[in-house]
Amino acid sequence: MPTRVLLRDVALHLNDRDEVAVALRPLPAGTLIDLGPGPGPGTEPLTLPADIPRSHKFALAAIAAGAQVHKYGQPIGRATAYIAAGEHVHSQNLGMDDTSRAHEFGTSRTELAVPSEPMPTFLGYPRADGRAGTRNFVGILTSVNCSATAANLIAEAFRGFALDEFENVDGVMALTHQSGCGLVPTSEGAQVLLRTLRGYAAHPNFGGLLVVGLGCEMVPVESLVTGYDLPTDTLVSTMNIQGEGGVRATVKEGIARIRAMLPELNKRTRIPISVSELVLGLNCGGSDGFSGITANPALGVASDLLVAYGATSVLAETPEVFGAEHLLTSRAVSPAVGQRLLDRIEWWQGYAKQGGGSLDNNPSPGNKAGGLTTILEKSLGAVAKAGQADLSAVYEYAERITERGLVFMDTPGYDPVSVTGIIAGGATVVCFTTGRGSVFGSKPTPSIKLATNSETFNRMPDDMDLNAGRIVDGTASLAEVGAEIFDLIIRVASGEQTVSEELGVGQEEFIPWQFGTVT
Amino acid sequence: MPTRVLLRDVALHLNDRDEVAVALRPLPAGTLIDLGPGPGPGTEPLTLPADIPRSHKFALAAIAAGAQVHKYGQPIGRATAYIAAGEHVHSQNLGMDDTSRAHEFGTSRTELAVPSEPMPTFLGYPRADGRAGTRNFVGILTSVNCSATAANLIAEAFRGFALDEFENVDGVMALTHQSGCGLVPTSEGAQVLLRTLRGYAAHPNFGGLLVVGLGCEMVPVESLVTGYDLPTDTLVSTMNIQGEGGVRATVKEGIARIRAMLPELNKRTRIPISVSELVLGLNCGGSDGFSGITANPALGVASDLLVAYGATSVLAETPEVFGAEHLLTSRAVSPAVGQRLLDRIEWWQGYAKQGGGSLDNNPSPGNKAGGLTTILEKSLGAVAKAGQADLSAVYEYAERITERGLVFMDTPGYDPVSVTGIIAGGATVVCFTTGRGSVFGSKPTPSIKLATNSETFNRMPDDMDLNAGRIVDGTASLAEVGAEIFDLIIRVASGEQTVSEELGVGQEEFIPWQFGTVT
Ligand SMILES: [Ca+2]
Ligand SMILES: [Ca+2]
Ligand SMILES: [Ca+2]
Ligand SMILES: [Ca+2]
Ligand SMILES: [Ca+2]
Repeated sequence: MPTRVLLRDVALHLNDRDEVAVALRPLPAGTLIDLGPGPGPGTEPLTLPADIPRSHKFALAAIAAGAQVHKYGQPIGRATAYIAAGEHVHSQNLGMDDTSRAHEFGTSRTELAVPSEPMPTFLGYPRADGRAGTRNFVGILTSVNCSATAANLIAEAFRGFALDEFENVDGVMALTHQSGCGLVPTSEGAQVLLRTLRGYAAHPNFGGLLVVGLGCEMVPVESLVTGYDLPTDTLVSTMNIQGEGGVRATVKEGIARIRAMLPELNKRTRIPISVSELVLGLNCGGSDGFSGITANPALGVASDLLVAYGATSVLAETPEVFGAEHLLTSRAVSPAVGQRLLDRIEWWQGYAKQGGGSLDNNPSPGNKAGGLTTILEKSLGAVAKAGQADLSAVYEYAERITERGLVFMDTPGYDPVSVTGIIAGGATVVCFTTGRGSVFGSKPTPSIKLATNSETFNRMPDDMDLNAGRIVDGTASLAEVGAEIFDLIIRVASGEQTVSEELGVGQEEFIPWQFGTVT
Repeated sequence: MPTRVLLRDVALHLNDRDEVAVALRPLPAGTLIDLGPGPGPGTEPLTLPADIPRSHKFALAAIAAGAQVHKYGQPIGRATAYIAAGEHVHSQNLGMDDTSRAHEFGTSRTELAVPSEPMPTFLGYPRADGRAGTRNFVGILTSVNCSATAANLIAEAFRGFALDEFENVDGVMALTHQSGCGLVPTSEGAQVLLRTLRGYAAHPNFGGLLVVGLGCEMVPVESLVTGYDLPTDTLVSTMNIQGEGGVRATVKEGIARIRAMLPELNKRTRIPISVSELVLGLNCGGSDGFSGITANPALGVASDLLVAYGATSVLAETPEVFGAEHLLTSRAVSPAVGQRLLDRIEWWQGYAKQGGGSLDNNPSPGNKAGGLTTILEKSLGAVAKAGQADLSAVYEYAERITERGLVFMDTPGYDPVSVTGIIAGGATVVCFTTGRGSVFGSKPTPSIKLATNSETFNRMPDDMDLNAGRIVDGTASLAEVGAEIFDLIIRVASGEQTVSEELGVGQEEFIPWQFGTVT
């Protein structure tokens, strides 16, 4: 006897215009699906000709070869073959839709509802340059990979109970990276590295900064902290291994210099600051078929709320919005902002081509296994993180963010590289959605991890902060989960530890975008 | 009264064929120099007609206009005017020799003297594939940056006294890297990463291997160790964070799996193995005006001795031999080997151009002030590390090295990236020359650091293994220091700790060459 089920119990039909539904659980071949009454593509029961994996799409009605296929009411590609009702819709029968999408500027702007409640506050660290920190870290910045081990050894001295008497200091972290030499100083790659290192040096979550170099590298340590706009209350010290007489002497001296900073840093205490001073970074990684229907739109609700209060929210991951950029340009506050986004997209097309690839094949094997077929489908789900707010500015990688509202930063999609750019720009809280189960962290800025489905949340309970999978389980609405995320952002900004901070994850995820020639 | 001195006390005559010597200290005009007995360009005392700066060249005999001038026994250019004995040889009378830059294959091959002593041995670990390890490490290989923190936490559990009962196990190290996702799997960049990770997985210095991934990355953990030629006695275990249920569970399970390997790995003991089984990697970093006359040629003496015994020595750093590649092709054992080098040089020209730069390795004003006149002379200083041996093979980055003798691997000059490629190819000892004072290390392969001058050696005593600066101080000859390096290589291969191993440097220097598009 074949199983007979109701569509709404086993799948999500996201928009009336959609020819496809998303399976909420594995549906075996032979399942009979009642489409139920009301609007929709048809009322005849479907029979699934083959197994449909969870979070994959199946057709609700026959689709002609060459026809556009919709999800979220938006085109996600074209059928590359005739698709029968009930059939699995994926790479074998759905391809990219290359018909150009018109880029309109500012034609879909949104007036966000101004919240009636008084402005909420978080407990943060006010900084001399007017920005607000959510943590009070000492950073050990390195100018070159040669000083990475020394920086790590210095940071290790402050682990365990070492900071117990300095309760207002959140930690000492090494910011090591793999470059700093073998670069042409004037090249774009070198400039991006410098901008990233300087952005971290000036970050409001660093109360103290020790810059450690070797001595003969491309980037002298002083160039990372002088002639650049660090908050005047950042305690700064610089040193070179060659000048100190080796690794051992550098580690000893570096520990002493940080120890000398701690009493002063410990005097800094959290005070109530308006949420309008928060800078939220948005990211996703290990996405699945649920990302775009649970965690991402719920995060979009929280982001819109922050923006309505006057805060800043940073969308990024250019390759993951590629193909859906027309949806962002139509939300741009000015043609110049919209054009800036298109310019970055164009830059990426050249960059991808130069690397022998193209931006069309972005869904990873993991994404595809999770049911995402085309870059457009993935992008539509990715952009949902940014809610409905207007786009007020577009920044280059690691550029200092100064505008309020929803802004875009041009970064790769690769998680640590993307978030490093956003934090260099000034993000003080990150929200990270994950379907397959990312274990991301990003010191000195806390990263809140939002699971897109309950299976992942329950399988990796130590690594997830919040379960947005309840939206498909039917135990919480999008609006409810969005409000929970907003509350969690405020608690984390005020000092509550995220799971990645508890686990000690976040130092390896400092990865400046590296491109250009290595010699 | 003019000063009267012996040539060998004030200058370095690097090769009998050389018309020039290099001043070891500033020599004032009027100095009388006794050339001394024995073979050489002449026995009449010289009078210097002008001041010779330290590390600059002067003529030992008259040189006709248009004649080739040699250093290291190799042509560095042609006299652009008549040069009298004792005259300063530099830009004013020495120019590029474009006629001799034709790429000839195998026209300058050298018969290395076969040592009369019996084959020396080192105490190494014989491996199932016939190769010989110099260390017995457990490696924690990561398929993607997402598992870096977990790998580090697992490795940390084996620090301190944790391995005391396993005296034949040299350590447990994490091989973390910043990539593994956001790459096009078929791109050259992804292939280079895979080749590097697989080269480390198969390295003879790893008796045990734990491969840790996240679970949704581009490179599945199994693909690093299966279908690939690991020694059959390498103990291998693979795991994914998503499969284990998070970071905490992964760390616990990873520690248990390595602990289970230790009793078996501890049964492996060092036995005498012929030095012909050693694979020596050559590198330099933070070079100065002495590099090409002290540490580099002394290392060349040791390299030639190893090659004469049938061992393998690996020259690399393509951008630093650029312009002198014809000197290597003329030493090639076959036209195919010579052509392979030229192909890699051509690839680099395109790579550098793509990055907006060029491989213009002409001597800089700083180089010229240091006494380097032509690009040939500069590159010869770098190539001096490889002695006089014939070139028996050319490898791509991280390719498995299978030929004996002197081979070349195409790598950038940037130290950690270059040495990572060489070790992926199978190097079991590295010799690293440094002028300014590098603090390089490279687990699981020991790196011996050779200072080019006494000032650096004395300033950073904890970071240098041997002082080749004694060659210019006049307290040791090139041949003597070369023999010391050879002996030190054997001792280190047999288990003696290098200074970087004592300091714990070498885990941050695992940096696979990253190029191509990051998405
Ligand atoms: Ca790092
Ligand atoms: Ca991402
Ligand atoms: Ca031991
Ligand atoms: Ca690493
Ligand atoms: Ca180098």
